[in-house]
Amino acid sequence: MTLQQLLGTEFPIIQAPMAGVQGSALVVAVSDAGGVGSLPCAMLSPDAIRSELTTIKSVTDRPFNVNFFCHVPPSRDAEREAAWHAVLAPYFEEYGIDPGAIPTGPARAPFNSELAEILEEFRPAVVSFHFGLPSAELLARVKRMGAKVLSSATTVEEALWLEAQGADAVIAQGLEAGGHRGMFLSDDISTQVSTLALVPQVVRAVNVPVIAAGGIADAKGVAAAMDLGASGVQVGTAYLLCPEATTSAVHRAALQSPSARHTALTNVFTGRPARGIVNRIIRELGPISAAAPEFPLAASAVAPLRAKAECRDNGDFTSLWSGQNPSGCREIPAAQLTQELTAGL
Amino acid sequence: MTLQQLLGTEFPIIQAPMAGVQGSALVVAVSDAGGVGSLPCAMLSPDAIRSELTTIKSVTDRPFNVNFFCHVPPSRDAEREAAWHAVLAPYFEEYGIDPGAIPTGPARAPFNSELAEILEEFRPAVVSFHFGLPSAELLARVKRMGAKVLSSATTVEEALWLEAQGADAVIAQGLEAGGHRGMFLSDDISTQVSTLALVPQVVRAVNVPVIAAGGIADAKGVAAAMDLGASGVQVGTAYLLCPEATTSAVHRAALQSPSARHTALTNVFTGRPARGIVNRIIRELGPISAAAPEFPLAASAVAPLRAKAECRDNGDFTSLWSGQNPSGCREIPAAQLTQELTAGL
Repeated sequence: MTLQQLLGTEFPIIQAPMAGVQGSALVVAVSDAGGVGSLPCAMLSPDAIRSELTTIKSVTDRPFNVNFFCHVPPSRDAEREAAWHAVLAPYFEEYGIDPGAIPTGPARAPFNSELAEILEEFRPAVVSFHFGLPSAELLARVKRMGAKVLSSATTVEEALWLEAQGADAVIAQGLEAGGHRGMFLSDDISTQVSTLALVPQVVRAVNVPVIAAGGIADAKGVAAAMDLGASGVQVGTAYLLCPEATTSAVHRAALQSPSARHTALTNVFTGRPARGIVNRIIRELGPISAAAPEFPLAASAVAPLRAKAECRDNGDFTSLWSGQNPSGCREIPAAQLTQELTAGL
Repeated sequence: MTLQQLLGTEFPIIQAPMAGVQGSALVVAVSDAGGVGSLPCAMLSPDAIRSELTTIKSVTDRPFNVNFFCHVPPSRDAEREAAWHAVLAPYFEEYGIDPGAIPTGPARAPFNSELAEILEEFRPAVVSFHFGLPSAELLARVKRMGAKVLSSATTVEEALWLEAQGADAVIAQGLEAGGHRGMFLSDDISTQVSTLALVPQVVRAVNVPVIAAGGIADAKGVAAAMDLGASGVQVGTAYLLCPEATTSAVHRAALQSPSARHTALTNVFTGRPARGIVNRIIRELGPISAAAPEFPLAASAVAPLRAKAECRDNGDFTSLWSGQNPSGCREIPAAQLTQELTAGL
């Protein structure tokens, strides 16, 4: 069975879910063009998820993907958070931010039974997870809805684990990929390998379809991934300049500047390693900071800095997520980009 | 003009020069099979180079490549070397090594006029460099011999620089590649990107042929690289188990073990970042150690540890160079591997 047959779509092209920079508009555009649009739910409230799914269902009957994080929420650690605030103190002072007034609490909830209930109302064709899979019980519930389940593997070990737990396909996420590494069996970033190295090894190891992600920016990249044995691809960064994405102005500007050539895996924005364009906070505190609290607790203290800086058209504290190959970023409709990606198929 | 026409070979497949693990036997086997065999000269004395070139010329008239490093030799820094010895002291004690008796002096000489003179005797079809290019004068001398000149670029900036200096083709070295990073315009390893990300960007930036290196292990990888716009490929790791390679027993065993899945960029063996299988010294001192002296001065102090450990069939201190995709490593003749790599061309 091809990936297209498994997911019920025309093309084996998945638009990568990108929390914070896109919503239903990008999903609809990609799915209507024959790919698989993805709705990232990690940073949305249950109400917002319901609203976005209602929008999607009202305008398209094509298959789409709904994406969730499934990390284990950390215990709060007042000492560590205080240490993180201390590291950020000079920036708070620079921007006139009162550190005592920063709202706390995790902004990113993992998949849970309340979210499963919402999915049951909308029955999406595809559900994907990042950072592993939810509990066996929740996973069974998602499968009972008829959804095909995908999750990201960054190593052969993770791919084997996902297959054993019942994933219908595995996304082999090479280290070129922008945003959060999906890693969940190890937190050692030296275990992370490129798409060219990872895909053939995962294809050899598992029997489910393998979706290549990371560094794929155009039809040539899609063809290369298929040559390596992938059944499909997941493309993120190339969609960031599309009008349907909600990418901020500073983020759009960075992607179109020469600085986009230099990305790094950093934990300074959320506590977990994620790839973004190197900017001031990464240069001064990272890319990996031992002081950053556990995911997602690092995020709340950086948020007000980001907001204040962006008001000055300044991306110094913005998570400028991007993969290592921004060469596919163009200001074209997502439908056109999706079509162009299929040129060599 | 195709890369084959430029280099005068049947296939656009270059066997990567791998100092310390191969000599003329691998060169001859690959060149006779229609690829481009490469003789790494960085760790050979002038006499040894002359001897190897004599051997090659006596058994084949096919084109082959001779490879040199062209780093700027560092000044000795007694304080830094003493600090490095202090870091290694527990290992010296463990292995009963007298640190005062370790022979010093750089084991890797850059390309110079004496080596150019040797090349003039043998007139190889191809000469490749790592870490940039030699002086304009030496480069002109190599070109006057009729040799085509290649060098490695790890960023778009390096590719543009090499083209401007007169390189006939550029090797785009993705970060998957085993052994030393060819980086020479920056020493920031976060600038290093994968083959999938680098090749399309370099192809777009330069007018000379681009050779893809890093993560390419089989015919599928070759096809993927060509899809990305490469004119040819350079393959290293996959040749390490061939009988014609001089890969040590501990290195061969590591490449065939699950530990080969975990490589890292490390400077603990030579002072420059290079990719190898993670072993004890990398785990305990690295992967990047601020204490390691400048390239190649870090090497001499590690050499006796390696020698003693290898006598016990132990690779704890061996530079187990490997790319991120060891899946092409098989104990087959180099001619057969070369043929198999061409299957999709």
